[in-house]
Amino acid sequence: MTIQQLIDQIRIKKSFLAVGLDVDLNKIPQHLLELEDPIFEFNKAIIDATHDLAVAYKPNTAFYEAYGIKGWMSLQKTIHYINENYPNIFTIADAKRGDIGNTSSMYAKAFFEDLNFDSVTVAPYMGKDSVEPFLAFENKHTIMLALTSNEGAFDFQTLNVDGKELYKHVLETSKTWKNSENLMYVVGATKAEYFTEIRKIVPDSFLLVPGVGAQGGSLSEVCKYGMNTTVGLLINSSRAIIYASNGTDFVEKARAEALKMQQEMSAIISLKFKV
Amino acid sequence: MTIQQLIDQIRIKKSFLAVGLDVDLNKIPQHLLELEDPIFEFNKAIIDATHDLAVAYKPNTAFYEAYGIKGWMSLQKTIHYINENYPNIFTIADAKRGDIGNTSSMYAKAFFEDLNFDSVTVAPYMGKDSVEPFLAFENKHTIMLALTSNEGAFDFQTLNVDGKELYKHVLETSKTWKNSENLMYVVGATKAEYFTEIRKIVPDSFLLVPGVGAQGGSLSEVCKYGMNTTVGLLINSSRAIIYASNGTDFVEKARAEALKMQQEMSAIISLKFKV
Repeated sequence: MTIQQLIDQIRIKKSFLAVGLDVDLNKIPQHLLELEDPIFEFNKAIIDATHDLAVAYKPNTAFYEAYGIKGWMSLQKTIHYINENYPNIFTIADAKRGDIGNTSSMYAKAFFEDLNFDSVTVAPYMGKDSVEPFLAFENKHTIMLALTSNEGAFDFQTLNVDGKELYKHVLETSKTWKNSENLMYVVGATKAEYFTEIRKIVPDSFLLVPGVGAQGGSLSEVCKYGMNTTVGLLINSSRAIIYASNGTDFVEKARAEALKMQQEMSAIISLKFKV
Repeated sequence: MTIQQLIDQIRIKKSFLAVGLDVDLNKIPQHLLELEDPIFEFNKAIIDATHDLAVAYKPNTAFYEAYGIKGWMSLQKTIHYINENYPNIFTIADAKRGDIGNTSSMYAKAFFEDLNFDSVTVAPYMGKDSVEPFLAFENKHTIMLALTSNEGAFDFQTLNVDGKELYKHVLETSKTWKNSENLMYVVGATKAEYFTEIRKIVPDSFLLVPGVGAQGGSLSEVCKYGMNTTVGLLINSSRAIIYASNGTDFVEKARAEALKMQQEMSAIISLKFKV
């Protein structure tokens, strides 16, 4: 998917919601456990119920790997299901990969070719040659960790490097890499006040924003400081939507939560872009 | 496996060699491609031929994920094969994972429980709560990136933070985390001169050292500056051993390369420990 196609979808749906598919068998409705592939069935139900409200789905690979081969099969079925049935959806493999060059090429192959995701999240610690292999794929997007939503973000990401926080160096340096136009960045919603500074460095890039909802971030604050002229945000919500209920009404409850977020987003878009 | 058991194996085998199982179907002997699971068959042959010379095997997960479910099955068969046939071998899932707390717990479950590896490599960028879930597992080991062997290591890892390189902050900070005795660190062999400084911060920890051989690092230099009183090093070699030949003699050639490294290591151990 191209960036323009993603922007178009945001305009059409008046939504910049990414639904995180972090499926834990202990948290899904127990009646699904009787089915052959409960994780896929859960995802399918959530996707069918929310695809008109969300522009992106983001399975976190950890939740699939934890179930071994069965989990990897559920992931594969999920991404195929989305690609076949909802081709306008932007798909994110939340994998946080990164390794030396020839190894990162294999990860890129895994997520962009074998699984056919539109994007994958990567970690920056190993630098340029660990990320550029991902950037080489046309119309695929590499979402690099910049400032994350967790407590540990303050351990290293905000360390002072020559008068400037490390995450700012990460953002600036990444702009010099080959095909850097294929970069997006992870910026946690729990740090809304940082968005102003971040937008000075990457005014045009899409930012994937976790941490709204369960982790305490505010949608309106993030939009106030983080939105750019094409919206430029993908707000992720996982638990608040997919675990809205663990009963037989989980589909309706998930849709209701997604709708609530989409309506907030629609209001913000209307206000900001006077449409 | 406990640290003491690993140290015992190093003494018994006079080796601190870790063989990297980074299997690329384009590089293995082509006659194996006729078999049902060429990756596993290749690994099995390499392991059978080198298990008395190596103390550890390190499959890099990227090379398995690139082949989708079939790749993941090859990885599972490989780790099961090692655990069943060579229980004294230390196993390393080179996965470089790291995410927020509840997600890192799922990764830890994937590698320590589902696949039953002794250790997994992790990335530090997301800080304490992204690593501690791995450290909570008893007799499992978490190998965190400190200073890597690639060119991009100099993008961020050596940035000056208050007069000290970032990777030193990473090492120091990680020592304050819960169950930090379960930490080991990745330090690239291409940066042998850094080992002296690193040993001042983590004198007792095991260091996993990639970059000897194909990437240009020197075994004797690394040992000179990096060894501690229990050896404290695991030297990884991947391509130099497993791709020593891509003909029908690949097993003999791989063994010959591993033997060469083991003999160098044995000589170093004898010299250093006067045994």
